[in-house]
Amino acid sequence: MFDRRIANIRQRFIKENLDGLLISSVSNITYLTGYANFSQDEREAYLIIGGDFQYIITDGRYTEAIKREVPHFTLFERSHQNETEQFFGQLKNQIKLLGIEEDNLTVSEYKLIKKHFKTKHFEVNKLRSIKNSEEIKKIETACRIGDLAFEYILKEIKDEVTEKQIAQQLENFIREKGAQFSFPPIVAFGKNSSVPHYQTGETVLGPESSSGRGGQFVLLDFGVKFENYCSDMTRTVFFGQPSKKQQNMYEVVLEAQKKAVDYVKSSVKAAEVDKIARDHIRSTGYPTIPHSLGHGIGLEVHEHPYLSPKSKEILKEGMIFSIEPGIYIPDFGGVRIEDLYVFEKRGLRQITTSTKNLITI
Amino acid sequence: MFDRRIANIRQRFIKENLDGLLISSVSNITYLTGYANFSQDEREAYLIIGGDFQYIITDGRYTEAIKREVPHFTLFERSHQNETEQFFGQLKNQIKLLGIEEDNLTVSEYKLIKKHFKTKHFEVNKLRSIKNSEEIKKIETACRIGDLAFEYILKEIKDEVTEKQIAQQLENFIREKGAQFSFPPIVAFGKNSSVPHYQTGETVLGPESSSGRGGQFVLLDFGVKFENYCSDMTRTVFFGQPSKKQQNMYEVVLEAQKKAVDYVKSSVKAAEVDKIARDHIRSTGYPTIPHSLGHGIGLEVHEHPYLSPKSKEILKEGMIFSIEPGIYIPDFGGVRIEDLYVFEKRGLRQITTSTKNLITI
Repeated sequence: MFDRRIANIRQRFIKENLDGLLISSVSNITYLTGYANFSQDEREAYLIIGGDFQYIITDGRYTEAIKREVPHFTLFERSHQNETEQFFGQLKNQIKLLGIEEDNLTVSEYKLIKKHFKTKHFEVNKLRSIKNSEEIKKIETACRIGDLAFEYILKEIKDEVTEKQIAQQLENFIREKGAQFSFPPIVAFGKNSSVPHYQTGETVLGPESSSGRGGQFVLLDFGVKFENYCSDMTRTVFFGQPSKKQQNMYEVVLEAQKKAVDYVKSSVKAAEVDKIARDHIRSTGYPTIPHSLGHGIGLEVHEHPYLSPKSKEILKEGMIFSIEPGIYIPDFGGVRIEDLYVFEKRGLRQITTSTKNLITI
Repeated sequence: MFDRRIANIRQRFIKENLDGLLISSVSNITYLTGYANFSQDEREAYLIIGGDFQYIITDGRYTEAIKREVPHFTLFERSHQNETEQFFGQLKNQIKLLGIEEDNLTVSEYKLIKKHFKTKHFEVNKLRSIKNSEEIKKIETACRIGDLAFEYILKEIKDEVTEKQIAQQLENFIREKGAQFSFPPIVAFGKNSSVPHYQTGETVLGPESSSGRGGQFVLLDFGVKFENYCSDMTRTVFFGQPSKKQQNMYEVVLEAQKKAVDYVKSSVKAAEVDKIARDHIRSTGYPTIPHSLGHGIGLEVHEHPYLSPKSKEILKEGMIFSIEPGIYIPDFGGVRIEDLYVFEKRGLRQITTSTKNLITI
């Protein structure tokens, strides 16, 4: 699998007259090596792929693991004595034009690399947007664990529970299943749900989070990471009988999602799908969605394709992405419904399977 | 506090003839705003600080939170209609030379910014290396929770427990204290401890992780994040009576740490401190430390100052950093002892306080 991916990359960069490619993004390193243990916060490794060589550059902390788990790459162990820059210097004769990930490399690294090579942007991320069957299976497993977690957590939504407690219970459940959160979950009670990226806090279910008459919004946006692959879903349920307005918000969001899903039958522009959902929400008098309609998902929670008004991407078979319309009314509350879909021959197949019937607790 | 930090930055960039400064690193945004909720994985915000203005650029998901929590910055809400680049364009007349964080900004962002401004690297990270009393208190609290967690986990180290179970129990304990891990913990049994960055796995304490005669190494490297500030510590204990060799490794590592600590009395070169510990370990016939001796800590687990052979930094009062020598013998095991120290008038004060007596379980 890794060999095929690397061969695919080589073909492409030969077409672009590149002599080599420097890969710095941790997700792309994982994609090409299977090794997922480098820090996301600090630069701990690079790959360099040439026509007939492929190196992994990292330091002594990883030597044993890389020798064991990434035998298809030649290890250059950088250290205070053997610096990465010296190694770049050695490659100068083999590589004139080097592909780099301009979206990932920092300016400091760029300036250092520029001393040795001419460079050109090479897009690696997009290669990940079409998933193979093994990747689809892993994401489906992550989704299944998420669905079970949602079913479980519904029973824990009760008077006096806090947002953080719900988040903790979700996490415990997911960990017991041998997985972990794919991102810090959003648990938002009452009017907190009107903040799309609300930070889960100490709000207590019951009077404190009450939005006046009607039920209380309970927005749950969380994802699971299973064997390095991510899921993502959002459900909004009501604690107490929802008002007519709350019900209407829910119905409009659900219908917006449905319209977007139905629109995807064969190759289609991502921006058009975004527009379908967005227009539906605005046509009913609600404010436009203050975020994109959806995003691809895989080794990262957000990756290609992006379903946004300005996206130039085409949705294709094999892609997995979210569709997640929402309505947010400041000081009142918000509804978001998010599912993941895999694009198959006949259209979209939903792989998060939790019910979307309006739930009142 | 934030005003003083910003004033300090303004003074410095005026000295460097900068008209403004673009801050992109999430930790530095937190340092200057107090707001810590932006993603570390994706670019969700910038700060732009000029002589008489200060903007925060982010999108609609954060609008409510920023208005509430960061009133000292003017919000530019970017969206598909109001792109960041347009805003840069508007600032063109006010800012000719813009400071940027070259260690953080990507090449793509750089190319875009270059269309509007001349740029120059401006080092923001180093401003964080001297901590104020509030920061020291937070890190001390994180250390205290870590110490309690260590005391607790010793009782859970028993036959048939796995590394992952120990990690999970540590995490549960830390969460109950209202904190979280500051990084994925390393729990390494037996010869796994010879890999400095071992990925906590399914190894079972007991026969499977046995390194032959002697006790089994149990290396625990973990940290706590409390109110955005991090701690970090490592202890190595033995499950079963350690052999003479194991005891000797432990003693040499502990002595290396002690020598490094004693060396720091007034302003001193970080590289010299690294050398003291490194030389001690090598002088006893063990291999050199395959990583740096230590690192500053604060909003990030690893930050200035860095205690490494090539560091050019000077250690100063108010800094907090780790000292963490180690000996690693492939296929046998490793010992690392790591503590945090705050540099005070009279020298280093250790703020992780777990015992360093050799522990046999």
